[in-house]
Amino acid sequence: MAVYTDVPDDELRGFIAEYALGEVISCKGIAEGVENSNFLLRTEAGTFLLTLFEKRVSPMDLPFFIALMEHLAAQGIACPTPIKAKDGIALRQLCSRPAVIVSFLDGMWPRRVHPVHCAGVGDALARLHVAGASFALRRPNDLSLAGWRRLYEACRARADDVKGGLAAELGSELDALERLWPETLPMGVIHADLFPDNIFFRGERVSGIIDFYFACTDFLAYDLAICLNAWCFESDGSFNVTKARLMLASYRAVRPLTPEEFSALPLLARGGALRFLLTRLYDWLNHPPGALVRRKDPLEYLQKLRFHRSVAQPSAYGLDA
Amino acid sequence: MAVYTDVPDDELRGFIAEYALGEVISCKGIAEGVENSNFLLRTEAGTFLLTLFEKRVSPMDLPFFIALMEHLAAQGIACPTPIKAKDGIALRQLCSRPAVIVSFLDGMWPRRVHPVHCAGVGDALARLHVAGASFALRRPNDLSLAGWRRLYEACRARADDVKGGLAAELGSELDALERLWPETLPMGVIHADLFPDNIFFRGERVSGIIDFYFACTDFLAYDLAICLNAWCFESDGSFNVTKARLMLASYRAVRPLTPEEFSALPLLARGGALRFLLTRLYDWLNHPPGALVRRKDPLEYLQKLRFHRSVAQPSAYGLDA
Repeated sequence: MAVYTDVPDDELRGFIAEYALGEVISCKGIAEGVENSNFLLRTEAGTFLLTLFEKRVSPMDLPFFIALMEHLAAQGIACPTPIKAKDGIALRQLCSRPAVIVSFLDGMWPRRVHPVHCAGVGDALARLHVAGASFALRRPNDLSLAGWRRLYEACRARADDVKGGLAAELGSELDALERLWPETLPMGVIHADLFPDNIFFRGERVSGIIDFYFACTDFLAYDLAICLNAWCFESDGSFNVTKARLMLASYRAVRPLTPEEFSALPLLARGGALRFLLTRLYDWLNHPPGALVRRKDPLEYLQKLRFHRSVAQPSAYGLDA
Repeated sequence: MAVYTDVPDDELRGFIAEYALGEVISCKGIAEGVENSNFLLRTEAGTFLLTLFEKRVSPMDLPFFIALMEHLAAQGIACPTPIKAKDGIALRQLCSRPAVIVSFLDGMWPRRVHPVHCAGVGDALARLHVAGASFALRRPNDLSLAGWRRLYEACRARADDVKGGLAAELGSELDALERLWPETLPMGVIHADLFPDNIFFRGERVSGIIDFYFACTDFLAYDLAICLNAWCFESDGSFNVTKARLMLASYRAVRPLTPEEFSALPLLARGGALRFLLTRLYDWLNHPPGALVRRKDPLEYLQKLRFHRSVAQPSAYGLDA
């Protein structure tokens, strides 16, 4: 929840004049997204989202993200479509920051996750993976194994301030994942951050997927494992196997999992839990006082990590191979 | 800048079903307004603003504010129009808070104030005062003399932590204003908070006035004095007499000032400066750590207060009587 940059109206007018969108009618900073500044922009041509990229997104990665959204939208995925200015270029500058206007998507993200939402997520994620198969660009996942090691080393000395024994537990988990992590599963473009606030529904139907700014090239099944973490636990930490079964079944109905992918699910889910545990832990320990973003609890993911470590078979997620 | 309350989608759907607005298409928390939670709401019937009133606004005052907006909108003032539900009632409840849907206003507030904006403000403020003359309800201004005294007493002991000598300077200013404050100037409904972020422009034309949640019954010229403070100083503290002249002349062209109002302007402007100085000082001293709202500098208003105290004649504001 944050708007970091306030855009002066005369600068905005000049910026919009480069597009064929008519005049600005209104522009409101919206309280969603913690990485960038987002504005709901209304012009004579319609409603759009204006994003200014703040420092946490690397400018070098932006062409990948923009091209990916263009590709997916062209393949019929309901995702933001970058709007090109009159010169044909979508990625521009505003207030000394990289900026892009994308189409506005209808719908609301589910504040309370019901099983039907998880079915929608599985289906939408599989369609995303299928549509991404023909996308030519690649971007390594900087938040996979090597990234986890770097984050861990940056947090290690103070991890026990958050919870006694945390540094040791994370260290041995990381050692295990480095030893066991698969080398050869089907790869492709993954969203890598498909949490409830990144997918819109109208009623029970998925109406859009947003926020592709962690997208990268990695194991497709790892994306599904991230969703198991993000969607299938209740707020008391319990695992809702009904939600997981619906998610996996809906995914497989569109894109079948290979036997190797299926049996790797518990391990991939441990990795997904560790990834969010470590980024949250890092943010927790490095949270500037007075920052406008609320810290998320890293220990929520310790509980999830332990659950996945306790899983003997992927059938614990509700489905047989 | 804040959204305090996150509205679950199923609660929102139930709430909207009470209106004749069709289905919800989207609902985004917007990063404007520090007192309430505001959402840009799109339904099949159009675009609206949904406001949830947080604790700083007294529920007892809400019927006054709602009725005022209805009255002004009916008089042709471009202000938010409360939308009634099917039962004819505009003021409702959502997430255990008073809530209202109002019409959405086009335009943007000026991040950089140019003289032409000040002319627009003067004109719009005068039209607001004229339209308010036929409004029957009254609400005393709880942020006038008696309120300043209360705020001062609450801040006095720690005021010098902000600036040495501040408590004494504010104390003698308050004594002077209590002695000199006018008793009989033309009264009516005033906005009382017409800062740049509360007035929208499209190009050079005022397209809307928002945020009536400080509106009350007080001297009309005091509202103009608040605007002199809010619009006519540069960021270095200097007073821009061109802006003041345009504002006053545009106001007078719609609603002439009486000689008593005109000569009271420097005193009213001191009062306006003291009012914002004291509320900012109070917030500064009582700012909860980690709050999502940035504190505004109270000393900006000390400089303005001193300017108005140095003014011998209202002609210092650029106009003769």
